[in-house]
Amino acid sequence: MSGKKPYTYSSRIRFTHTDPAGYVFFPRFFEKFQAAVEDWFNLELAVDYAGLVLNRGLGLPTAHTECTFIKPCLLGEMLDLSLRLIRVGNTSLTVEFIGSVAGKQRLRARSILVFIRLKDGTPVPIPADLRGKFEDYQAQS
Amino acid sequence: MSGKKPYTYSSRIRFTHTDPAGYVFFPRFFEKFQAAVEDWFNLELAVDYAGLVLNRGLGLPTAHTECTFIKPCLLGEMLDLSLRLIRVGNTSLTVEFIGSVAGKQRLRARSILVFIRLKDGTPVPIPADLRGKFEDYQAQS
Amino acid sequence: MSGKKPYTYSSRIRFTHTDPAGYVFFPRFFEKFQAAVEDWFNLELAVDYAGLVLNRGLGLPTAHTECTFIKPCLLGEMLDLSLRLIRVGNTSLTVEFIGSVAGKQRLRARSILVFIRLKDGTPVPIPADLRGKFEDYQAQS
Amino acid sequence: MSGKKPYTYSSRIRFTHTDPAGYVFFPRFFEKFQAAVEDWFNLELAVDYAGLVLNRGLGLPTAHTECTFIKPCLLGEMLDLSLRLIRVGNTSLTVEFIGSVAGKQRLRARSILVFIRLKDGTPVPIPADLRGKFEDYQAQS
Repeated sequence: MSGKKPYTYSSRIRFTHTDPAGYVFFPRFFEKFQAAVEDWFNLELAVDYAGLVLNRGLGLPTAHTECTFIKPCLLGEMLDLSLRLIRVGNTSLTVEFIGSVAGKQRLRARSILVFIRLKDGTPVPIPADLRGKFEDYQAQS
Repeated sequence: MSGKKPYTYSSRIRFTHTDPAGYVFFPRFFEKFQAAVEDWFNLELAVDYAGLVLNRGLGLPTAHTECTFIKPCLLGEMLDLSLRLIRVGNTSLTVEFIGSVAGKQRLRARSILVFIRLKDGTPVPIPADLRGKFEDYQAQS
Repeated sequence: MSGKKPYTYSSRIRFTHTDPAGYVFFPRFFEKFQAAVEDWFNLELAVDYAGLVLNRGLGLPTAHTECTFIKPCLLGEMLDLSLRLIRVGNTSLTVEFIGSVAGKQRLRARSILVFIRLKDGTPVPIPADLRGKFEDYQAQS
Repeated sequence: MSGKKPYTYSSRIRFTHTDPAGYVFFPRFFEKFQAAVEDWFNLELAVDYAGLVLNRGLGLPTAHTECTFIKPCLLGEMLDLSLRLIRVGNTSLTVEFIGSVAGKQRLRARSILVFIRLKDGTPVPIPADLRGKFEDYQAQS
């Protein structure tokens, strides 16, 4: 509630992302959502995302996602993806992404991410050391 | 209503699609939805998808999509994506994808695809020669 | 030497593969080389590629690759990738890919693939049950 | 010859890039080479890469590439790709990429990039306003 801005992941639209229409091919946005989550962990929450996967054997797959593409993104543009945490559940996070270029909205998405144990795919409660960080972030953004 | 089965696009889960957990990385499914639409045009509706883009200057971007991932897909599995046409609008199609492996559901998705003129991105009415094909497909599946 | 044709993996050029010029974005070809290797194992050599990775804990990363792009590939074209086995080493395979559309060459590539133990990345000798299959394939193609 | 360091593009290894072995899937490196070239244009040479494509109708496809993967890259690592310009030809550039993590080499690659007119794919001489920039960069790095 502090009015602090949500974490924003910025990335340039590259040739790699664009299709024959010169616009971002929509599956690439979902790769960017994943990148936004990883950097949110690494840079905003100070949680090493790679360590979570490689050392702690945890995964955070997307169980549900929905996205509305308002206006296409063009090669060369800088896309800002802001990340708000809508809900901290028992095993899951509900996250909202708002994508904008120069302050104008281009897309809105919402995803449910579930903590799982990688070795068998079972959902697990959000680890205690992370829960507090998520709740703090949710309160502030 | 004929009970004819919906068009189904089958593809093997490859190394390319999988992540460190050995499962499909979720953005790859959206690439497969796009492939399913292209083959549905080419093989089921007998409409040359590439010609639509390259010769007629039309695009069919995804304006909205939502997907629920029920169970992950593993390297080597054959994923069957069946495509049902839920709605034929003025400029858009609403399509449902059901993904299954050996008859067991793994994911469900729904997308809205909009016909646009590629040169300026403006939505255009579904071309007359295609509308009939879509309506026939919708009726049968 | 039997004059039998090399294994050929055919795939359509999709929207997913193409860039704003309407042509295949070159990294996508390397994904197709990987797909060709996987299907060559599965369909030609009758070796379950996924089982190799998931059950036997073996990997076959590309240690070196080089590719010459002769002519671009366009949305909608069918690309035939033929795979010849140039050399069967102690731990590695040298493979040549020739890509063509309707019989006209579009690209040529050569890759060295190394068998490794996934858990630590160490190169391992080609497993005995596979070596014979590779040598037979090399002799025939 | 000034001893100035070559332009270096740094990017984190993400989930998106990695395969079931936890390492970067090799085609992703070629996407990173493309990103490195785009940022080299935008940030080092002060040439708007997107404008080249979208406004001037020029493309810079890769005509040949070869890459040796010395050691795999792991999820979470920062990969530094330095770019040296080996040759400035009439219509082409020969570029060398050296990829390293924390100063240790992981891969080396060399690509030939050709200037083309996008509308018909014909190679064109390097535009005069760019040639000087390339020659300066080649001299310094």
